[in-house]
Amino acid sequence: MSYVYGVDVGGTSVKIGLFTGEGELIEKWSIPTRTENNGESILPDIAASIEGKSKEKGISDEDILGVGMGLPGPVDDKGIIRKAVNLHWNETFNVEEKLASCFKGKMKVKAGNDANVAALGEAWMGAGKGYKNIVMVTLGTGIGGGVIINGKVVTGTMGAAGEIGHIYTGTDTAEPCNCGHRGCLEQFASATGIVRLLKEELEASDEESEMRHRPVNAKEMWEAVKNGDKLSIRVAEKFGKYLGDGLSVVAGVLNPDIIIIGGGVSMSGDVIMPYITKNFKEHVFHASADTVFTRATLGNDGGIYGAAALLIA
Amino acid sequence: MSYVYGVDVGGTSVKIGLFTGEGELIEKWSIPTRTENNGESILPDIAASIEGKSKEKGISDEDILGVGMGLPGPVDDKGIIRKAVNLHWNETFNVEEKLASCFKGKMKVKAGNDANVAALGEAWMGAGKGYKNIVMVTLGTGIGGGVIINGKVVTGTMGAAGEIGHIYTGTDTAEPCNCGHRGCLEQFASATGIVRLLKEELEASDEESEMRHRPVNAKEMWEAVKNGDKLSIRVAEKFGKYLGDGLSVVAGVLNPDIIIIGGGVSMSGDVIMPYITKNFKEHVFHASADTVFTRATLGNDGGIYGAAALLIA
Repeated sequence: MSYVYGVDVGGTSVKIGLFTGEGELIEKWSIPTRTENNGESILPDIAASIEGKSKEKGISDEDILGVGMGLPGPVDDKGIIRKAVNLHWNETFNVEEKLASCFKGKMKVKAGNDANVAALGEAWMGAGKGYKNIVMVTLGTGIGGGVIINGKVVTGTMGAAGEIGHIYTGTDTAEPCNCGHRGCLEQFASATGIVRLLKEELEASDEESEMRHRPVNAKEMWEAVKNGDKLSIRVAEKFGKYLGDGLSVVAGVLNPDIIIIGGGVSMSGDVIMPYITKNFKEHVFHASADTVFTRATLGNDGGIYGAAALLIA
Repeated sequence: MSYVYGVDVGGTSVKIGLFTGEGELIEKWSIPTRTENNGESILPDIAASIEGKSKEKGISDEDILGVGMGLPGPVDDKGIIRKAVNLHWNETFNVEEKLASCFKGKMKVKAGNDANVAALGEAWMGAGKGYKNIVMVTLGTGIGGGVIINGKVVTGTMGAAGEIGHIYTGTDTAEPCNCGHRGCLEQFASATGIVRLLKEELEASDEESEMRHRPVNAKEMWEAVKNGDKLSIRVAEKFGKYLGDGLSVVAGVLNPDIIIIGGGVSMSGDVIMPYITKNFKEHVFHASADTVFTRATLGNDGGIYGAAALLIA
């Protein structure tokens, strides 16, 4: 029997999954992300947790195919990470070699950007199963993206391919994006972007809306949309315009089989989809008009699946 | 000694190149594209021309690695072409098999979309030599595009990847694009798009301009830009805004090493480049800010080089 570990490193916790070599998830757990001292404990903590699990399960090193890891920063094909602000990592180093050294070189390690890795997870065992050319967009606090061509993750020259959250919409915003620019897609179509658009609508008039009585967040707004709340529907239309138009450009460049919508915003359900696809179809080149749209199916486990897939898919 | 033929099929002529197996161009020539009767003679004409050349040069079939072909339409990975309006081909068929049958099955045939193939040519022997991740944009009557990832052409699900000319700019135009939509990049940054912008400027006021005394075309306009003509410079800035912004989105998705600008408009020289790169840098995600920009170097031979590269690169 062979095994593989999939690791999804986030700013507050690290999720780890133990998989069989065939890709079956046996067990998952998480450990805190210790960001103090420039996050120097993060990789040793991961190695210790994995070694502990192998011991607990009686799995010997030679039966482990390796450890895959998704990280919140750009990782290139050689395993070099340039910066991971949320982990307090400010240096450029080879993260594959560094984690391997925590295992005293006894373990094969592969790493990738978390959004790219999540796309690979959906491609392997989720909504993208059976498709070769996949675009995944993760709508959370920010927007992440991953591109799969012929079954392989496109990493880009600096490990920054798939940065769909920071494509320019053509509409400059008053507030800058986290990246420093104005008018990024993330400012309109992330959970944060939706709240921004919602506040603008609420402040623009005294129009009655459910959202004057609900907590102002993206999840509540989609509930209001389901109830037919007019103000919320206008926000949903803006969200869909920017995201649908943006994805039409991505599809014009890549002509993918499928576009998968993941992340917290996608958990609000199929209610979000027509707002996106209506604008997509209006502006996409005709050969991509039949691109399949679907929501992610692995939820928060996409990252550990994708990390495992770095070694075995 | 081994040989390969590279064929670039256009709406008025077919360019053919005879290359050594190492990629050296030995001879090039062209034949007319006979589009009558739904273009049924085009492939037999190509086969006859190639067989004639082999005979003339005393090259035997077994020394020919194959025939590569670039076509003005979407061609998928299996060699299926869906439509090629300029060739009067209106059916979906396997163009590789059809040309191979003209050689009675004695020749290996590979086909691709002409813009993708031109990108491969530049990647192999032109401005992209030595780079793995390449975006090429061809500014002619329309705009074509090609994407190379890890040295391989990205064809897309329907053979329509790289359709950069039809990405939506966010600015709707009064006149529709050839594709039926409004606001495609092609309407602003092709030679035709430049003329459209130029006419708008000329009609908007009586401002004196060299362009009131020159033929109204893109080539003349770039000459006027070189002379400091204010009205022409405003048009160049609009051209650069749409193209630079559009390419910033492409680079956000792919994080390429290099973006190559080809086609007739690029022949006007380096004068065009700062207008593009200024806007590109303003809006591209920081990790792609250092993307190399350059003009194509193979000119009209890019197509035959790329077609040959389908077999030997």
